[in-house]
Amino acid sequence: MLFHVKMTVKLPLDMDPDKAAKLKADEKELAQRLQREGKWRHLWRIAGHYANYSVFDLASVEELHDTLMQLPLFPYMEIEVDGLCRHPSSIHQDDR
Amino acid sequence: MLFHVKMTVKLPLDMDPDKAAKLKADEKELAQRLQREGKWRHLWRIAGHYANYSVFDLASVEELHDTLMQLPLFPYMEIEVDGLCRHPSSIHQDDR
Amino acid sequence: MLFHVKMTVKLPLDMDPDKAAKLKADEKELAQRLQREGKWRHLWRIAGHYANYSVFDLASVEELHDTLMQLPLFPYMEIEVDGLCRHPSSIHQDDR
Amino acid sequence: MLFHVKMTVKLPLDMDPDKAAKLKADEKELAQRLQREGKWRHLWRIAGHYANYSVFDLASVEELHDTLMQLPLFPYMEIEVDGLCRHPSSIHQDDR
Amino acid sequence: MLFHVKMTVKLPLDMDPDKAAKLKADEKELAQRLQREGKWRHLWRIAGHYANYSVFDLASVEELHDTLMQLPLFPYMEIEVDGLCRHPSSIHQDDR
Amino acid sequence: MLFHVKMTVKLPLDMDPDKAAKLKADEKELAQRLQREGKWRHLWRIAGHYANYSVFDLASVEELHDTLMQLPLFPYMEIEVDGLCRHPSSIHQDDR
Amino acid sequence: MLFHVKMTVKLPLDMDPDKAAKLKADEKELAQRLQREGKWRHLWRIAGHYANYSVFDLASVEELHDTLMQLPLFPYMEIEVDGLCRHPSSIHQDDR
Amino acid sequence: MLFHVKMTVKLPLDMDPDKAAKLKADEKELAQRLQREGKWRHLWRIAGHYANYSVFDLASVEELHDTLMQLPLFPYMEIEVDGLCRHPSSIHQDDR
Amino acid sequence: MLFHVKMTVKLPLDMDPDKAAKLKADEKELAQRLQREGKWRHLWRIAGHYANYSVFDLASVEELHDTLMQLPLFPYMEIEVDGLCRHPSSIHQDDR
Amino acid sequence: MLFHVKMTVKLPLDMDPDKAAKLKADEKELAQRLQREGKWRHLWRIAGHYANYSVFDLASVEELHDTLMQLPLFPYMEIEVDGLCRHPSSIHQDDR
Repeated sequence: MLFHVKMTVKLPLDMDPDKAAKLKADEKELAQRLQREGKWRHLWRIAGHYANYSVFDLASVEELHDTLMQLPLFPYMEIEVDGLCRHPSSIHQDDR
Repeated sequence: MLFHVKMTVKLPLDMDPDKAAKLKADEKELAQRLQREGKWRHLWRIAGHYANYSVFDLASVEELHDTLMQLPLFPYMEIEVDGLCRHPSSIHQDDR
Repeated sequence: MLFHVKMTVKLPLDMDPDKAAKLKADEKELAQRLQREGKWRHLWRIAGHYANYSVFDLASVEELHDTLMQLPLFPYMEIEVDGLCRHPSSIHQDDR
Repeated sequence: MLFHVKMTVKLPLDMDPDKAAKLKADEKELAQRLQREGKWRHLWRIAGHYANYSVFDLASVEELHDTLMQLPLFPYMEIEVDGLCRHPSSIHQDDR
Repeated sequence: MLFHVKMTVKLPLDMDPDKAAKLKADEKELAQRLQREGKWRHLWRIAGHYANYSVFDLASVEELHDTLMQLPLFPYMEIEVDGLCRHPSSIHQDDR
Repeated sequence: MLFHVKMTVKLPLDMDPDKAAKLKADEKELAQRLQREGKWRHLWRIAGHYANYSVFDLASVEELHDTLMQLPLFPYMEIEVDGLCRHPSSIHQDDR
Repeated sequence: MLFHVKMTVKLPLDMDPDKAAKLKADEKELAQRLQREGKWRHLWRIAGHYANYSVFDLASVEELHDTLMQLPLFPYMEIEVDGLCRHPSSIHQDDR
Repeated sequence: MLFHVKMTVKLPLDMDPDKAAKLKADEKELAQRLQREGKWRHLWRIAGHYANYSVFDLASVEELHDTLMQLPLFPYMEIEVDGLCRHPSSIHQDDR
Repeated sequence: MLFHVKMTVKLPLDMDPDKAAKLKADEKELAQRLQREGKWRHLWRIAGHYANYSVFDLASVEELHDTLMQLPLFPYMEIEVDGLCRHPSSIHQDDR
Repeated sequence: MLFHVKMTVKLPLDMDPDKAAKLKADEKELAQRLQREGKWRHLWRIAGHYANYSVFDLASVEELHDTLMQLPLFPYMEIEVDGLCRHPSSIHQDDR
């Protein structure tokens, strides 16, 4: 099941740089593991913003929630979620 | 160059059904041709809405504009455009 | 899988009363069938508004979209969708 | 009388973890007591958010206010309230 | 039980004047009957707007909904509803 | 002259409890004095919120401003003001 | 008593030109009479918009409402009202 | 050239009272000098708010910007600017 | 004096094509004349939208208003206006 | 390729003045280098705001993102990005 997620990261301006670096490194490691597992299908930076558009491929709404909640940057994110369906005009059976 | 586009279609409630069917058929044909040419990379229906998220792969901002303007449903759409970049945490050189 | 949906109905002020009555009767029949099938779990009127909060229990995002699209009043609705999860403080295994 | 409440929790990012844990434990205990008493009828997590949709079954507007005010997390919540009525298309006399 | 309601009336600019006059006369008659019955406790015009603030005194959320739905101008209104409670600083037991 | 005022109180989450208690006690004392003088005609809590709807009966716009400015909680309030008029459908000469 | 009013005029795009011209001429005549009477103290066009900022000098909220309601263009206006007071830094006793 | 400016002042709740008093005194002195020079033509308090509507009479957009930037309270203000023109219905050649 | 203007064109969906073509041709002719005169300094299409960003170089706010009002498409436009100043970091005396 | 960017700067009110001065000096130096290289084509101050409208001329969306991310003030900015195209009514082949 596909979910479209927009994540906008808002780190406190006075966050300790080491803490920020650690959070980002942990986030990156988890993001890459989830990509290798095929669960985080797409991950794009939005030009001009500290934000991304992502597409997740997961078994359920519950798994989506659990996945987002474990992101190290989750407490600093504004998140928008939409469910995705195959579009009737798509030429791909399983749009990847 | 990748562009993320959200299109929300708002056909007039009293549009002639034949005209609507013709517009949608033309839109579908063009959308499929652009997909086959690799220019309309992703096309997903947003669950619960007459709307889609799309990712285009085009040579320039100008080509993006020309592509959107020629869509038969363009006059009935609300459109939001964002440029996309490779995300530093992506494991794909060219995220498809 | 549970989905929370807010539907706000906006019929054109000049709609033919017979057409409106027919649409509402068809909507009611379908809504009641989906309730009997256990797919439309809750359906509440929002006080003071021609709108409802609903909870659907469906197998996938795709089924949610197909269900909403077949509602006779869909073209006249503004719709907001949220996925629902079991809440960690809920005392019900399967909140009904 | 039914009330639909959306609660979005915004804990300060720098809140002492022990204080946060205590608040959440107290909140959970009260939420579960109110559920056992039949006053907090439904409690769902909104996927991707630190937020919930709840349905309360209470004797009056006053009781709703008193119930929400005593929640330990109340000072950290954004709250939206709607009254709910039986929907004319519902097949349940008392929608639970 | 008290409810605070803001009603903003938006009649179509091209509505037949006789129909408009009839709607307003019916609305007035019902509003005055409900005031005499003590159910529509306050009714004020908002300066500069075709809108009012009202306070209703009713037995339940259900009665509020039924009352608003039967207003002849309901289809032309934008409505906002809030429940009201006695304020701890009020000097009136039953604020009228 | 009547004015409708919505006040939403936003105390800093880390305010010293004694200072908060003092502010609230002073606010209450002033609110009750103004009610006894007939200037603060209605004062209702909005259910689910740390907010109130109030109706003031004052001699001028200037007196409204001076009254609101002297409220101890003024610096912590979001305020919305509307002028009120007798409604043509009201059955009260001087709606109280 | 001074009131600051923003009026934005939205005539239907298909309004009969004669009707529009008549409305504007009537509006102008009334506006100029009210200016001569000292009730409509200031009237400025907002650059780039079919809108104005106005300052009225009237005896009460009620007179403000009655004045605005009799404007021929009132049904086509979006209106925002604010009460004005003498500013403590103003050098004019009665700012004109 | 006339400009309409809305200034909303948002001083930090914990600002040192002496610093606040100094800022306000400096602001007042400059505001009065600019009024005496005829550059700050009108200055009204908005009832119920720590905000003002002002009309400036300046030689250029550049002078408007320089004037606003030198206000001691500028860093604490939300500002909205509109250009003003003589209104075709105004009876004043140079609306003062 | 420079002004930054965003124009979003919203032609009625059912406008007569000949009328639309005539309006656009007239708009184009005027836009090009104003460019040749140096008054309409920049004119860019916003990608994906029937809208433009423009920079005007005019003698006054009044001239800006008169220029915009005479645009044939003005009645169909949403317009946002900002004054522009030389930026302290610009390397151009007169940014063109 | 042209991009239209609005940047609104929001420095913390309590930022150390030396740090602020250093950030602004660095920002200015980079902004001027990018202007000399022809990449930052236009840079205007928005009258009354600590904000600017800019037009960038860059090879790709990726270059736009990299350019904005390296601005010293980027963490303190709200940014809006639009792609620009040649307008069909422009008289300039390459609008500068």
